[in-house]
Amino acid sequence: MGGDYAPQSIVAGAVDAVKEFSVPLTLVGIESEVQAELKKFDYPQRLIEIVHAPTVVEMDEPATASIRRKKDSSISVGVSLLKEQKCDAFVSAGNTGAVVAASSFVLGMLEGVERPAIGLVIPTLKDFAFLIDVGANTEPKPEHLFQSALMARVYVKDVLDVNNPTVGLLNIGAEAGKGSVFIKEVYKMIEGRVENFIGNVEASDIFKGKHDCIICDGVMGNIVIKISQGLMESASALMRREVSKSPVAMFGAAIMRSRLNHIKKLADYSEYGGAPLLGVNGLVMISHGRSSPKAIKNAIKAAIREIEHNILAVMKEEISR
Amino acid sequence: MGGDYAPQSIVAGAVDAVKEFSVPLTLVGIESEVQAELKKFDYPQRLIEIVHAPTVVEMDEPATASIRRKKDSSISVGVSLLKEQKCDAFVSAGNTGAVVAASSFVLGMLEGVERPAIGLVIPTLKDFAFLIDVGANTEPKPEHLFQSALMARVYVKDVLDVNNPTVGLLNIGAEAGKGSVFIKEVYKMIEGRVENFIGNVEASDIFKGKHDCIICDGVMGNIVIKISQGLMESASALMRREVSKSPVAMFGAAIMRSRLNHIKKLADYSEYGGAPLLGVNGLVMISHGRSSPKAIKNAIKAAIREIEHNILAVMKEEISR
Repeated sequence: MGGDYAPQSIVAGAVDAVKEFSVPLTLVGIESEVQAELKKFDYPQRLIEIVHAPTVVEMDEPATASIRRKKDSSISVGVSLLKEQKCDAFVSAGNTGAVVAASSFVLGMLEGVERPAIGLVIPTLKDFAFLIDVGANTEPKPEHLFQSALMARVYVKDVLDVNNPTVGLLNIGAEAGKGSVFIKEVYKMIEGRVENFIGNVEASDIFKGKHDCIICDGVMGNIVIKISQGLMESASALMRREVSKSPVAMFGAAIMRSRLNHIKKLADYSEYGGAPLLGVNGLVMISHGRSSPKAIKNAIKAAIREIEHNILAVMKEEISR
Repeated sequence: MGGDYAPQSIVAGAVDAVKEFSVPLTLVGIESEVQAELKKFDYPQRLIEIVHAPTVVEMDEPATASIRRKKDSSISVGVSLLKEQKCDAFVSAGNTGAVVAASSFVLGMLEGVERPAIGLVIPTLKDFAFLIDVGANTEPKPEHLFQSALMARVYVKDVLDVNNPTVGLLNIGAEAGKGSVFIKEVYKMIEGRVENFIGNVEASDIFKGKHDCIICDGVMGNIVIKISQGLMESASALMRREVSKSPVAMFGAAIMRSRLNHIKKLADYSEYGGAPLLGVNGLVMISHGRSSPKAIKNAIKAAIREIEHNILAVMKEEISR
């Protein structure tokens, strides 16, 4: 039921995933609504089950309060299914804060991890980078970012198949010793204790692709993804406006449209499906509220990879070393 | 002597400014080098004076240490001229941290202001916004951002000629009550005490142009401008790569080039010249290290407007109200 296009988009993406990956899925939500959507599709029925959850956490509801009040929401019921091991991973395009709150509360934290963090795969000029945290923890201590760095490396290595990934710390300058007291403390903590840490990364260099894992606090990470999104949207709007002023430019734009669409993807994270919520004791994948069926399918695909790689156990081992 | 293209770019911009605005300028730097550059131009000689400063703070030197050690650098000498009222404003494309440190130390703070902040005019889809702080203060207290908001309003109203400017607080969500404890405290402090405060602004909405003044801490502001710069550079690189794959697209790009260049400006802040250093007791304008002559000329133009509007006196009055 979560997200701006629920349940349509979610159900369509789930059906695609079932067909493509042949995995059993449980859809959690208002049964009649989910059922009505499912009826539109042809799919192997034995692979999709519905678990009824009568209430819905709205996208703009205060997270913690809504989780406390709506104990039978699709988010709470989904997380509980995960806790009871009735499923192996939970994917949601719903209220991010509520998913983080419910997951932390019900699943608890991984041993050695104090706070959850959301990682996000972002496209770069080379390939991609994994940015963590993009908004779960707005009041981090230095050790939280250190723990995120350990988890990020495992994730990028095992789930995203990058050999010996590099780690960078988002900072306002490239040199060591730059930034706030907080960032300097994080630097000291990560240096020497996180493999292949290659120092600070400035925001202007994120998209150049030198760093596989980029560590930051939840406020900075959130600013990074939202400014990218806003800038590309504004640049597109400006381009349409500029191009429409000249028939010659309109012709030029028309014949290069397919190339321009590639560029838009640089800031369109929804294409990448889900953002893993790391640190909680269970596999939780958060999708963008505006997820398309393709994004939902990709989030499910990423969750499957997490399950196959037994990522929780690997993280636990890495953190306890 | 400051900036990546000094003294060439600075001298060329100064000569243009003298010709266009007929104001007397003092160039501070290694006399022989500045003189050699000046000789290349034809200009009203009585309007340009050189004050010798034998040392130079390099762009990547630690700010405070370099200011303490190089007491006769162009930055220190320039700020001292301002302190001694031998000039009305100081413009520098040099090491930002060093300019902030020297200005704070030599000029002192405006009464009622505790920390300096750098404001920056950024282009938006509508017109422009004034983002403050973009990197002077990485350890702010809530009252520092409140003081910046007061100064920003005066600046945007008086220097940039916006009637009753709106003020927004950069946050990770649009609703009141979002964000870190720090941001929530700033919100409470600004609300009701800063005129025309219209609430939180998400990073994705900065370029939409709804807010005339956008308040944030120095780390967030720095991330905003650097991510914009990096993203536009990467998008340009990606566009060149994509377009080069297809002759038809190359033709399309060629005939719409002038329109595309407009879009690049959306993130090219150097076009706008200088970034005022607010809060110190003197008019200081910081230019980008990669400033073109045009950017230097525009920074000088902005400084002239500050002088004409007697902006320090107006700010003092506003803050003491």
